[in-house]
Amino acid sequence: MQIAIMVYPGFTALDFIGPYEVLRNLPGAEVRFVWHEPGPITADSGVLLIGATHSFDETPSPDIVLIPGGLTSFEHARDEKVLDWVRRAHATSTWTTSVCSGSVILAAAGVLKGRRATSHWMALPMLKPFGVQTVGDQRIVHDDKVLTAAGVSAGIDLGMWLFGQIAGDAKARAVQLVIEYDPQPPYDSGHLSKASAATKATASALLSRDTARNGQLTAPVALLWDAAIGRVRKKAASAR
Amino acid sequence: MQIAIMVYPGFTALDFIGPYEVLRNLPGAEVRFVWHEPGPITADSGVLLIGATHSFDETPSPDIVLIPGGLTSFEHARDEKVLDWVRRAHATSTWTTSVCSGSVILAAAGVLKGRRATSHWMALPMLKPFGVQTVGDQRIVHDDKVLTAAGVSAGIDLGMWLFGQIAGDAKARAVQLVIEYDPQPPYDSGHLSKASAATKATASALLSRDTARNGQLTAPVALLWDAAIGRVRKKAASAR
Repeated sequence: MQIAIMVYPGFTALDFIGPYEVLRNLPGAEVRFVWHEPGPITADSGVLLIGATHSFDETPSPDIVLIPGGLTSFEHARDEKVLDWVRRAHATSTWTTSVCSGSVILAAAGVLKGRRATSHWMALPMLKPFGVQTVGDQRIVHDDKVLTAAGVSAGIDLGMWLFGQIAGDAKARAVQLVIEYDPQPPYDSGHLSKASAATKATASALLSRDTARNGQLTAPVALLWDAAIGRVRKKAASAR
Repeated sequence: MQIAIMVYPGFTALDFIGPYEVLRNLPGAEVRFVWHEPGPITADSGVLLIGATHSFDETPSPDIVLIPGGLTSFEHARDEKVLDWVRRAHATSTWTTSVCSGSVILAAAGVLKGRRATSHWMALPMLKPFGVQTVGDQRIVHDDKVLTAAGVSAGIDLGMWLFGQIAGDAKARAVQLVIEYDPQPPYDSGHLSKASAATKATASALLSRDTARNGQLTAPVALLWDAAIGRVRKKAASAR
């Protein structure tokens, strides 16, 4: 089962690392991190690098498509190559999923037209122009084979739910124990309905930070990166 | 505030991506991913690459030390260079922390001797030979400036708790809303006390998979990687 997680400059890492940590335990799972081409992709923080292992062209028909969110999801939602890949992958996927503002990319590709879907609370209004029936009070929304989750950490719940649908409750419970997913948040302001106006204002300010980054070449670690990408691609190839 | 997250071959990504997603919002946060040298590090899944941005030698005195877990934490707990860095960093840190079996590395470095600490349920017994007072029924254990968390997803709770200690409850609640941390697991087997014997047996089997990977050079994406590492290092340098 091929799981294609789209990574893009400005992604929010927890959006997809949560479901990745769950779904990689699916029997026969082949996880790919896809972008225009293989290489390092910088997170919204500007300090975390994650490797795109395969290109869009190399990954035309994954079984599961997962689009994470990030402050830049809105600009990538105007990238026709991205939208074309999402449309083609969705046409043959078993499940098409998003976490956080990744749903904006699904919406821009037309995948959510007329469907019930959710997103990060701050991105939810952006779905309406695409003809989406937005749902703000559910952690995960499933409409046929399209699964959308709320913000960032909601991806773990999406992953657990989807794992159960595919592999059954017994295996899903085992994965929950593997990742010791017995959450005990020390606060209770994780949803708009539970947060004060001051908390929402501070959260909105944090979300509006500009995380654009620029730089120059340094660190000659080229061979290390090549070797690492090579190992991942070799494994993916031998798994087919 | 410098936050040094140790990454190593075989790490479990969610262990540190959870707290990273929270702690990077600390005022003046400079997050570094440290290893023997900068370069791509392969996760336990063999398909996820994360960039180590700085070496141990470049990062002698971080304010916060975070050691994630992974099936290979036991072998890295015998790497004297790793243990020496942990000891020196702990000597001047404000907080020394671990998630999952990362506590085995803290214990091997002598940081947990005589202290109360926790770990992933499967790794907990490995702490006893190091003179640790193991605690299996707490999600997060704090003993003076040493903070240890249970398995994998417990790192999010560790990050939330630590953020609150450093920046206060009001800002912590805002970060909880930013990452929409309002967990709703579709199952309730995330702790040994809640899991059946069958669930524990299946989980143990999943955890014992061999995730060792080998490979060869391919993918000439050297310049991309260099540029990415360069951007991260330049940002870190300019932040000081």
